[in-house]
Amino acid sequence: MSDTAGKSIFCKAAVLRQFNKPLSLEEIEVLPPKAHEVRVKVLANAMCHTDYYSWSGADSELNDDGLPVILGHECSGVVESIGEGVEGVKVGDHVIALYTAECRECKFCKSGKTNLCGSVRATQGKGLMPDGTTRFRSKDGKPIYHFMGCSGFSQYTVLADVSVAVIDPKAPLDKVCLLGCGVTTGTGSVFNVAQVDENEEAQAAVFGIGAVGLAVIDGLKIRKAKKIIAIDINDGKEEWAKKWGATDFINPTKLKEGETIVSKLIEMTDGGCDYTFDCTGNVKVMRDALEACHKGWGTSVIIGVASAGKEIATRPFQLVTGRVWKGSAFGGVKGRTQLPGFVDDYMKGELKLDEYITGYKSFDKVNEAFDDLHSGNVIRTVVNMWE
Amino acid sequence: MSDTAGKSIFCKAAVLRQFNKPLSLEEIEVLPPKAHEVRVKVLANAMCHTDYYSWSGADSELNDDGLPVILGHECSGVVESIGEGVEGVKVGDHVIALYTAECRECKFCKSGKTNLCGSVRATQGKGLMPDGTTRFRSKDGKPIYHFMGCSGFSQYTVLADVSVAVIDPKAPLDKVCLLGCGVTTGTGSVFNVAQVDENEEAQAAVFGIGAVGLAVIDGLKIRKAKKIIAIDINDGKEEWAKKWGATDFINPTKLKEGETIVSKLIEMTDGGCDYTFDCTGNVKVMRDALEACHKGWGTSVIIGVASAGKEIATRPFQLVTGRVWKGSAFGGVKGRTQLPGFVDDYMKGELKLDEYITGYKSFDKVNEAFDDLHSGNVIRTVVNMWE
Repeated sequence: MSDTAGKSIFCKAAVLRQFNKPLSLEEIEVLPPKAHEVRVKVLANAMCHTDYYSWSGADSELNDDGLPVILGHECSGVVESIGEGVEGVKVGDHVIALYTAECRECKFCKSGKTNLCGSVRATQGKGLMPDGTTRFRSKDGKPIYHFMGCSGFSQYTVLADVSVAVIDPKAPLDKVCLLGCGVTTGTGSVFNVAQVDENEEAQAAVFGIGAVGLAVIDGLKIRKAKKIIAIDINDGKEEWAKKWGATDFINPTKLKEGETIVSKLIEMTDGGCDYTFDCTGNVKVMRDALEACHKGWGTSVIIGVASAGKEIATRPFQLVTGRVWKGSAFGGVKGRTQLPGFVDDYMKGELKLDEYITGYKSFDKVNEAFDDLHSGNVIRTVVNMWE
Repeated sequence: MSDTAGKSIFCKAAVLRQFNKPLSLEEIEVLPPKAHEVRVKVLANAMCHTDYYSWSGADSELNDDGLPVILGHECSGVVESIGEGVEGVKVGDHVIALYTAECRECKFCKSGKTNLCGSVRATQGKGLMPDGTTRFRSKDGKPIYHFMGCSGFSQYTVLADVSVAVIDPKAPLDKVCLLGCGVTTGTGSVFNVAQVDENEEAQAAVFGIGAVGLAVIDGLKIRKAKKIIAIDINDGKEEWAKKWGATDFINPTKLKEGETIVSKLIEMTDGGCDYTFDCTGNVKVMRDALEACHKGWGTSVIIGVASAGKEIATRPFQLVTGRVWKGSAFGGVKGRTQLPGFVDDYMKGELKLDEYITGYKSFDKVNEAFDDLHSGNVIRTVVNMWE
């Protein structure tokens, strides 16, 4: 047992007190873990667009009632202490936080068909631990809410025991934190959702070249796709996409007269793509992605998260003639079971991680990491929580 | 060789000369088959909603330029003569006409992933044989167009050799004609598209209880589904659905205050259906069918054909949380390869056919068969082409 076990820990956290305003760096109290919870010393947390989205106030599921809150969900750390009844994870374990839990006991986990565990979903959505309370308190004793079951922008955080993946302790935590969201979402969508096969010499298109789009490209390259067409309205993404393995790049705002992104992709692939991936969250792009699929078998996977109220549409003929419309969250990956394997693949050099990191920031510069992300010129900024 | 081989045959056909007007029963000339074509003596042709739809003039792909035309596509017969180079089918073979050809040589057939053969598609869509001409002439020598590559409402018709399935000669042709469209479309969607497994004790919903919807129910029963919920706005369909094996029936116009068909289905299945099938062609129903699927894995299959220009829509969240939207034509069935097996299953008593037939009509009463279909009180009327 650590000597902090069972006691509150006072540490630094970045607290969102008002949407669209800089996070407030303050000392907070982190209560000890209750039954089936673990307290984790967070080492690194990478900045993801979902944090930005929630920070901006655009997320309809996070409103003023959910403030103050500690954001961050792409994070890694070391288990400091555990509550009663915790199994499968012990003090000192290196872990990646899971915003998609895996309890192995609910209807979803037992189905074997999905990674969408239902065990902690209801409370997680409200910014609470499974018992309906919070483990964070501000100096004045008032509760601070959790975010996506993770809250990585605190030097210590408390997680449900079903929300941590125990990984190889030799893995560098300031790299593998990226597996907490974007990289896993992208590569997992290729492996688990589209289920691209190595032997099919697939032709694929990837819409939106951020970290997730690049991860899709990496996944496609691992599965030996023959043609990987990257699409982004920012020409600067061409270099990135090609470095990851894209064979082609299209800026859809620079097509020739009379061309559409759909007609262009159908022409380039002699009939349409075997697989397309939307990593933009734009519902018009989602439609293009579906309609650029090959008749008879083309599969389109929606990964991007759309704004509240937006709808996708197409003619049903697109599906009747054999296209398949799917989606995924966290790449269909069961975190506790599968994420350790992703770490191992990275350690063997088979999965990219280092290459996504365009910079590190010390924790006191966390607000700059937000600004960088917004600029569109970075892929991932990792925040070192103790520098 | 038959003594009619190589010569024109003069016989009776029902010709559509004007939309929404009775078919004209007239003597026509059926030219001999050219290379890679077969001429078939049609024994039976069942009336399908697609014939009705085209007859009414609502089909945007069949306009005045496509008239006169001989409708009918759910038909069976005996090969009278064959053209040069025909392989795999000979004079005297019993066949079912295929509006979805299977050439085994095009990109689609060779993919192994779809039944949407591309070999004769372009000309078939124009009402022509693959060489761009027609084999039907009216008394005044003017061409009459083909329909869906079949034109079963002629006592003799000419088909591409890739558009006939050779079946067991012991099978009753006035029953197995139903395998030319509706029954195969429904059961095939369960077997090939949804791929319902016998061991999963599936819960499924079927929207629209015509011949196709009943065939979906039969397919689900064959695959040992635990719950089969039939949905139709016509209460008279409950008896039919239950006879086929539905466990429940819902009339969505008679739900309780505050209930929707989606909420009702989610309640009845404790979370949503594993599979849903739209057999209505109504895009609002297609949305309901998707949204009534279980989070994480529910799969919705669009079978019905929507009116031109209509679009399906939903929130992308439905797909991101694991639902899958698919569709199918002819139940994903490869006609030449798989249809003989459907006939065998029928002969073994494992697949219903007789039960769909609510009546027979002699050919001179073909227009009454249209009226019957429109009434909604029949499932399938089979027209005996020689009575």
